[in-house]
Amino acid sequence: MKEFDTERFPPDPWRVRETGLDLGLIAQTESIFALANGHLGLRGNLDEGEPRGLSGTYLNGLYESYPLEYGERGFGFAEDGQAVVNVTDGKIIRLLVEDEPFDVHRGHLEHHERTLDFRTGILTREVQWRSEAGYAVRVRSRRLVSFVDRSVAAISYEVEALERPMRVALQSNLHANQVDRPANGDPRAGRALGDVLDSELHIDHGLRVVLAHRTKRTKLGFAAGMEHVIDAQGEVNTLTQSEPDLGRVTMAVELHPGRPLTLTKLLSYHWSSRQTIDWLRDQVDASLESAVAQGFDVLAERQRAFLDDYWQGADIELDGDPEIQQALRFAQFHLVQASARAEGRAIAAKGLTGPGYDGHAFWDTEGFVLPVLIHTMPGAAREALRWRHWTLPLARERAAQLGLKGAALPWRTIHGEECSGYWPAGTAAFHVNADVAWAVDRYVAATGDDDFLAGEGLALLVDTARLWAHLGHHGADGCFHIHGVTGPDEYSAIVDDNIYTNLMAARNLRAAADAAAGHRTQASKLGVVHEEIDSWRKAADTIYIPFDERLGIHPQDGDFLTHDEWDFAATPPGCYPLLLHYPYFELYRKQVIKQADLVLALHVAGEHFTLEEKRAAFEYYETLTVRDSSLSACTQAVVAAEVGHIELAYDYLAEAAFMDIRDLEHNVADGVHMASLAGAVTAAIAGLGGAREIDRQLVFRPRLPRELERLVFRITFGGVRVRVEVGQEDARYVIDSGHGVTIEHYGEPVELQPGAEPVALPIPPAERLTRPRQPPGREPMRWHERMAAARGVSVPEPGAETRL
Amino acid sequence: MKEFDTERFPPDPWRVRETGLDLGLIAQTESIFALANGHLGLRGNLDEGEPRGLSGTYLNGLYESYPLEYGERGFGFAEDGQAVVNVTDGKIIRLLVEDEPFDVHRGHLEHHERTLDFRTGILTREVQWRSEAGYAVRVRSRRLVSFVDRSVAAISYEVEALERPMRVALQSNLHANQVDRPANGDPRAGRALGDVLDSELHIDHGLRVVLAHRTKRTKLGFAAGMEHVIDAQGEVNTLTQSEPDLGRVTMAVELHPGRPLTLTKLLSYHWSSRQTIDWLRDQVDASLESAVAQGFDVLAERQRAFLDDYWQGADIELDGDPEIQQALRFAQFHLVQASARAEGRAIAAKGLTGPGYDGHAFWDTEGFVLPVLIHTMPGAAREALRWRHWTLPLARERAAQLGLKGAALPWRTIHGEECSGYWPAGTAAFHVNADVAWAVDRYVAATGDDDFLAGEGLALLVDTARLWAHLGHHGADGCFHIHGVTGPDEYSAIVDDNIYTNLMAARNLRAAADAAAGHRTQASKLGVVHEEIDSWRKAADTIYIPFDERLGIHPQDGDFLTHDEWDFAATPPGCYPLLLHYPYFELYRKQVIKQADLVLALHVAGEHFTLEEKRAAFEYYETLTVRDSSLSACTQAVVAAEVGHIELAYDYLAEAAFMDIRDLEHNVADGVHMASLAGAVTAAIAGLGGAREIDRQLVFRPRLPRELERLVFRITFGGVRVRVEVGQEDARYVIDSGHGVTIEHYGEPVELQPGAEPVALPIPPAERLTRPRQPPGREPMRWHERMAAARGVSVPEPGAETRL
Repeated sequence: MKEFDTERFPPDPWRVRETGLDLGLIAQTESIFALANGHLGLRGNLDEGEPRGLSGTYLNGLYESYPLEYGERGFGFAEDGQAVVNVTDGKIIRLLVEDEPFDVHRGHLEHHERTLDFRTGILTREVQWRSEAGYAVRVRSRRLVSFVDRSVAAISYEVEALERPMRVALQSNLHANQVDRPANGDPRAGRALGDVLDSELHIDHGLRVVLAHRTKRTKLGFAAGMEHVIDAQGEVNTLTQSEPDLGRVTMAVELHPGRPLTLTKLLSYHWSSRQTIDWLRDQVDASLESAVAQGFDVLAERQRAFLDDYWQGADIELDGDPEIQQALRFAQFHLVQASARAEGRAIAAKGLTGPGYDGHAFWDTEGFVLPVLIHTMPGAAREALRWRHWTLPLARERAAQLGLKGAALPWRTIHGEECSGYWPAGTAAFHVNADVAWAVDRYVAATGDDDFLAGEGLALLVDTARLWAHLGHHGADGCFHIHGVTGPDEYSAIVDDNIYTNLMAARNLRAAADAAAGHRTQASKLGVVHEEIDSWRKAADTIYIPFDERLGIHPQDGDFLTHDEWDFAATPPGCYPLLLHYPYFELYRKQVIKQADLVLALHVAGEHFTLEEKRAAFEYYETLTVRDSSLSACTQAVVAAEVGHIELAYDYLAEAAFMDIRDLEHNVADGVHMASLAGAVTAAIAGLGGAREIDRQLVFRPRLPRELERLVFRITFGGVRVRVEVGQEDARYVIDSGHGVTIEHYGEPVELQPGAEPVALPIPPAERLTRPRQPPGREPMRWHERMAAARGVSVPEPGAETRL
Repeated sequence: MKEFDTERFPPDPWRVRETGLDLGLIAQTESIFALANGHLGLRGNLDEGEPRGLSGTYLNGLYESYPLEYGERGFGFAEDGQAVVNVTDGKIIRLLVEDEPFDVHRGHLEHHERTLDFRTGILTREVQWRSEAGYAVRVRSRRLVSFVDRSVAAISYEVEALERPMRVALQSNLHANQVDRPANGDPRAGRALGDVLDSELHIDHGLRVVLAHRTKRTKLGFAAGMEHVIDAQGEVNTLTQSEPDLGRVTMAVELHPGRPLTLTKLLSYHWSSRQTIDWLRDQVDASLESAVAQGFDVLAERQRAFLDDYWQGADIELDGDPEIQQALRFAQFHLVQASARAEGRAIAAKGLTGPGYDGHAFWDTEGFVLPVLIHTMPGAAREALRWRHWTLPLARERAAQLGLKGAALPWRTIHGEECSGYWPAGTAAFHVNADVAWAVDRYVAATGDDDFLAGEGLALLVDTARLWAHLGHHGADGCFHIHGVTGPDEYSAIVDDNIYTNLMAARNLRAAADAAAGHRTQASKLGVVHEEIDSWRKAADTIYIPFDERLGIHPQDGDFLTHDEWDFAATPPGCYPLLLHYPYFELYRKQVIKQADLVLALHVAGEHFTLEEKRAAFEYYETLTVRDSSLSACTQAVVAAEVGHIELAYDYLAEAAFMDIRDLEHNVADGVHMASLAGAVTAAIAGLGGAREIDRQLVFRPRLPRELERLVFRITFGGVRVRVEVGQEDARYVIDSGHGVTIEHYGEPVELQPGAEPVALPIPPAERLTRPRQPPGREPMRWHERMAAARGVSVPEPGAETRL
């Protein structure tokens, strides 16, 4: 697979800019340049539609199902898969220059630049092309998916004749049932569904076409419409056509140098499982009318205003590493794109940027994305949790099917049903339930949204607590044990007493008990009685946390440390990710770790471990963790920073931050990884920034690696936005908005008053520690060293002691 | 599902006789009346072909493959399934009486009796039928699959007019590509493949037709032929036809009372993966010619002689329980049918009696069937092991694919490739390798076949030992541990230190070390060096055997006893077998047992446990074992008897013996269970007979339940056949054939001399023990009590103390 070179996107604090077109990387750039608003997503396909890696237009929640097959089926195996549907493509604007198609394969591409601007939310493309016949044109297109008008996307397409007059034709298409690529066998890629859309309506008026379709099995209806505004000198001949799977407006005009034609193409998409096609069509027409009334420029202004507001709360400034600065904003931009207007629908693992993982949502959302969104866009976090609440009836059914009580939320899904075709890494990963409960608890802590807690939140907490109470049991030792489940690390499965799961379950049980005790009336409506609350507290209080006295560290699960070691020396570099080269059988029974698991517990349930225990555990698990998952480097960054390995934390921050923008795992073609993007933000804020919420209070232990000059971030918590500015020597805390609050800096309480000057506090000197080793060849990319070397700064050898 | 009543097959020491025709049980009786010789199997379909449950004609080793699908595929998952093919049906003889088809649905079935005779090896059917038009006929058919002429089956079909003359027509068919039933969703049933045979040749001469076909994917060719001999008075008009999928000989004749027509139909089947269709056809024609020359009576005589010889070594006599007497002979008869002429092919779990389990062979063969065959038909046992040896190259490839050394024999297969579509209960059940090695060791011990040991046996032992040496590891405690494997109990999976697996692996390692040390030259050709032998011995000597000090019993695996208890009280009776009503997830993490696992270790590796340990463990696991597998009651019988629960052993013997003949598990429709049938024999010999082989010596601790008067069995071991006769008070040992030998009776050595009188030795009095409890509703059938009650004998209440 072709790799990104480090120069592909030159560092730019607020943009991703590509100055050439590499067709070998086209699918990857389609994901990176994808635009979305949480409802509608458009991959960054070229305007003319081809060449393309994967054409993609997605509506959040619109999916098709298919039967899951098994070599040997077992009771309770998921029955049907669900896959995100590539809906009607409205991005296409084809150009003919003197009857020759503008195709980057043909003629001479004299200039090609694409820029995604995180502040404007607009993808801009500038092209200068000379046809085989020698006609030169300049094309400038701008594309946005509106954060303000949820159903609307808009394209401004400007074409200008250079050097001499010429006849051009533009074809603006709506195209349904595009042929997908065949599946490539990688289980992480999306499923090729084939034609899954039945045409329900196709109609055109003037320069407008509306097509409506319905998915074949799930019977979900949607309508897509396009409207056009042409700004040109001279006569434009137009033709509008509609067919079941095609809408097309063709424009023909003679262009003269200096007198460009500008086509504004407005798109609207609505879908529903309930509304009639007629109603959907009406909505599309209304949305188009409103978009036409605004025009591209007003849409763009409102887009900018929306994003200005977002960045005010979300922005992270990082001085000293322009590449990571860019990557962090790229991450925050894709996070707002995935979630801003999801409104009661899921935030998928790849957002709306590609078909990867079939468009499913996993624990990624609550485990990684929401902990960031809760502070930057709490309303979007609430909506994501509302989606989980909406799926509770399905989760209760699933629990009953499995013989369990409460609710069993799905490991992977679009609509709510369990879609995992491999239960040891799906159904058995019950921690997703505790992750959701934890997100509820954190959301409420950060926002004080007691209405949510008393309603959807309580229902989620109670049903997940009931699950844990039933899943676990009190053993002969009196402790509460949870057996036969799978923790975050997918290279172990069906284990007893996974510490992450046990701690998170205990937290779930305690949160449910607290919430039920605090909302007696609502809790009793859910059938919660005192005895049940007591049983939750008892289970939480007696949760079993194994500890290996011989090694002095916490085992990932009860048996993990008794397992044989993975033979890293005998593992060729080409055999990563291991899951594509070794059977689960072998991975499960050895000490080898795909992704932070016990180390994740060290982060998110850090209060259960002493610093010494954290350091010992982190250093032990470093030697076993291969990071075959995008959900690992970020957590390793956080814990590395906490236990004193700040340079290693910086390396992991870089790896997390560059996961997608440099395609480190070679699968960004299928979409960007929301959890990893969020993880990069967490690596910065909780890692370098040392931020935690403990007992509903913000605490900080910030520290910068020597290469960085300054880190600024904001946390919104309890209605207060705190701005934190970390330097090499000290950290400054100030209230950006909201009332006074007490925080902690390295264990010392600090009072912050609104309107006061920043409080500057010194960062204590670091300990001297030996840098931990990773499995051979699995060291994190030492990005900052390469960058420092490029800048002529001397750097220590790998493995040398860090000195801070 | 319809159940067998206890009167269906009235007790008869040497036959299964059915005196009526119950169409609701037709599929079950097709399995019970199936005829086979290890190469060719014919289900007991009615001569006229319909009504039928499942038409079935099988050639051992002839299979079709199909791709295995997975909801989520993982590395090393089995790629293709294999399924036994229903080949050309030659059983069909249709009868028309005055143009009205003889169909048991029509007219009046005045008499219908089927008898399978274990001494003649012939299935006889006697029918008296009156047509709708009032014509009465008598039909008497006899069917055999020859043990002597491997490819040959023969049918003698006699039809006689009763009361008045009538015109009859007979149609004798060969029919390929019969339509199978659709799959019923039970994973244990066979797969419906559809039309998988391509016609290669169809030809007829005189009254002979030969059809040849080839499987579509596996490209295996076979030819089936039929020849006819008509014995009738009066003119017989005949017509012979052949089509790609049909051969037919039609005979029309006028019948008169007292002058029956006898049709002898001779069949021959040959298949090959190498030979041309021409050659196969030649073989069929030659076999038919030879069969015609013999005629049905000579074929029947030679069949009887073959079986006389078999019974001389195999027969078990049981006085006091005619039903179990019958069932044991039924079992021994199906064992010879499954294996006699397999000759280097597998013995499938259901033999050649039905499509259950897709016709696959499992560890059932080495774990249950061969331990019996080794004594009753050692040549057939050797052939089954030769098949395993033949598959070694595939097993080495599989091991390499899994990243392991040596050979990984498949969990289920026809041809040798792993076909398990669910790896936790397939690939992970590595104990199959040790089971095969153990069968090699036992075969050699029983026969002294050193040539086999030096050749195929050594290769099997070495490659399986290499697997274990690589699968296990020496832990920090210095012990050799085997992690992440699945033992015999399929309600646990992917566990650490399953005691059965560990003990059997140790035995495998030791047997390989001994064999390699004893055959240096051959071993060195396999690359075995001293260091490797030493490492095998070291692993075997340090094998880890967990023991729970608190409970004073051996855990099934390292963690088993820490698991929560299954809630039997909340499990409705209709929810068994549990695997069809609860997810694996739930089964795996609870203390609930499908089939004897630790208890199997108590039997087959009994030397590692004291009697007190065995008793404690047996009684503990009794409370957890639900026997959702046909591979459990027999082992429970053996260990119950050993630890002193002889009445319980008798109950389990009954359950094992009646598994198929009374369809206890409601799945005999798909074929009889070879392992369970063999298990019934073992329950009698090793259970009541108390027979063991320890250090290559036969030892006995026989004891009868009070209901039985006498048990006689034979064991052939080291070239000597010992006859053992057990009564209530004593046991008598005598040499049937072979040289003098020393055995043990209750720990006392006993010298037996050829030609001497039986040595009678007293059976010591039994201990008083409380009968162990089983999970509610899962008690074994108390067959002997019901029988005794029917005979007016008083019996103790369930749960009362046994007193012997």
